[in-house]
Amino acid sequence: MTTSEDLTFPPVEPPDEQVRLEAVARHGTLTKPVGSLGRLEELGTWVAACQGVCPPKPFARARVVVFAGDHGVAKHGVSAFPSEVTGQMVANFLTGGAAVNVLAGVAGATVRVVDIAVDGDTPDVVSSLKVRRGSGSIDREDALTREETLQAINVGRQVADEEVDGGADLLVAGDMGIGNTTPAAVLIASLTGSEPVAVVGRGTGVDDAGWMRKTAAIRDALRRARKVISDPVALLATAGGADLAAMVGFLAQASVRRTPVILDGVVIGAAAVVAEELAPGAREWWVAGHRSAEPAHTLALAHLNLQPLLEFDMRLGEGSGAVAALPLVIMATRVLAEMATFDSAGISGKD
Amino acid sequence: MTTSEDLTFPPVEPPDEQVRLEAVARHGTLTKPVGSLGRLEELGTWVAACQGVCPPKPFARARVVVFAGDHGVAKHGVSAFPSEVTGQMVANFLTGGAAVNVLAGVAGATVRVVDIAVDGDTPDVVSSLKVRRGSGSIDREDALTREETLQAINVGRQVADEEVDGGADLLVAGDMGIGNTTPAAVLIASLTGSEPVAVVGRGTGVDDAGWMRKTAAIRDALRRARKVISDPVALLATAGGADLAAMVGFLAQASVRRTPVILDGVVIGAAAVVAEELAPGAREWWVAGHRSAEPAHTLALAHLNLQPLLEFDMRLGEGSGAVAALPLVIMATRVLAEMATFDSAGISGKD
Repeated sequence: MTTSEDLTFPPVEPPDEQVRLEAVARHGTLTKPVGSLGRLEELGTWVAACQGVCPPKPFARARVVVFAGDHGVAKHGVSAFPSEVTGQMVANFLTGGAAVNVLAGVAGATVRVVDIAVDGDTPDVVSSLKVRRGSGSIDREDALTREETLQAINVGRQVADEEVDGGADLLVAGDMGIGNTTPAAVLIASLTGSEPVAVVGRGTGVDDAGWMRKTAAIRDALRRARKVISDPVALLATAGGADLAAMVGFLAQASVRRTPVILDGVVIGAAAVVAEELAPGAREWWVAGHRSAEPAHTLALAHLNLQPLLEFDMRLGEGSGAVAALPLVIMATRVLAEMATFDSAGISGKD
Repeated sequence: MTTSEDLTFPPVEPPDEQVRLEAVARHGTLTKPVGSLGRLEELGTWVAACQGVCPPKPFARARVVVFAGDHGVAKHGVSAFPSEVTGQMVANFLTGGAAVNVLAGVAGATVRVVDIAVDGDTPDVVSSLKVRRGSGSIDREDALTREETLQAINVGRQVADEEVDGGADLLVAGDMGIGNTTPAAVLIASLTGSEPVAVVGRGTGVDDAGWMRKTAAIRDALRRARKVISDPVALLATAGGADLAAMVGFLAQASVRRTPVILDGVVIGAAAVVAEELAPGAREWWVAGHRSAEPAHTLALAHLNLQPLLEFDMRLGEGSGAVAALPLVIMATRVLAEMATFDSAGISGKD
């Protein structure tokens, strides 16, 4: 039995500002004009500050966790694909055939999938933390009970702890769930004060009639969500889902554990906006991997004051946009650690 | 003795449009919504078209060639660094301490450096193709004789042939040369019809007084360059340099050899604009790795109708911005080749 007392996150401490300044100074000694690597320099100093050491260490274990869950609203015509695809994709992740598997292979990361709320059976290896089968259809009912919400948040928290304790030093959260851009849009709209038409997107590629149904579902869920925006747990129970709640717990706990995270697109972005409410300051531990084609994602990024690394019009989820950006974070880290200095290379400075 | 007859490039054939269409169709069978990987899908289909085979093969040998050369104009206060740094950086490339070495290590590419016109002695391993010691100060004299220009273009062409014959299936050209953003700006201004103030940038970080000297140097060189814009060889002789001429030959020949290239920043961008004049259609074989902080680069990209993959405010050269984007090209290729299909994974299609 989980109680709300279990939910309290300790205060999130920021990355180490002193180390960040050391890293900025170190960049000034490397064999290149100061600032000439642009965004790569900022990224590297952020990694050093997160690690609390300069030069930063190469990442030993970059880890992607895909949270899978179904959404009742998908049965009401808001998605281009049927709900059964969620479970089928879980199997695809396990056999390495999904986009995120291939991208992670290139980037040197490994992928874990966790069934939080798939509406069907999945292999034991992924189902041990399952909260329920599907979440409620948020256009007409709550997604979860309060107890289920707390349980799901704590599952996400537990997964973050397991990963960090297992040596993960860079985390990516991914999503898999037919219909999940609908609750994501509602969560973002509720916490950014936006209207349904500003947050609705095509998701996996819904047609015009589906787009209208999705907009109506967002409108109906948002009406109920707006009453509880001051309580993140109630908000997730009303208009989120178990997978989203787990992502929230994961993102918040990663920050508590001082572990940097690359954020993905609109679903993880929605979870991030809620996680920042639950654990203020968590966003200092995140970098935005990309800007999704989903309009709500831009609102979430602005709300969190994050600038995406890539603008590739991606809209797949699974953590794919974050993993696409992972090599840039690795490069930024290794440049800061491994380049020669003007002194060591015997190179003349500025005139 | 090189003559101008040696310079004629055979017509550049485009990448295989039939294969590109096959790749687009293949993307529609992979386990993701059609188009959901955005720019990664376009990149992958371009690679398949360049290779002439779908699914595309993983790159066997991604290769970076850094062309090093000095510029007489650097002696007249247009750069923040002294010319001796060019040769010092050549040594730094050889010992692996430069930014491009570290970035290439992460991306799985190898780096070759070629001394085209360093104003000093460099190790034999890099100096066998040297054209001259430094190029002329373009604000007051020609950079090269016509014969030297032809020789340098052919050296670049030879390097591309050597690399492709040696198994390189993806190429990056990089630059190293104190003062080289001045001729780069002149070449771009001359072929895009731009004014000096529209193309001048801070380079490695010149101060305000240097910026004024650089603008004046660009103005003076541009006055002479404008008279010869219809003759790319004369343009390179008047206002380019031996390193730039070699890059032009390299980029054009890579296209002749049907080998994809990731372009870097403003110096390689200037060479690309001239290469497209010498070998029309060459640009179909190029993708822009990034948008440099140098203003002339944006003009070059627009002129070539290329959209950069990264916008990171980088301004280092060396091929660094191209190599930073290399993992994205690798990812795009492997996703298209390795992802499961809806059929193979037994996943339901759209409702």
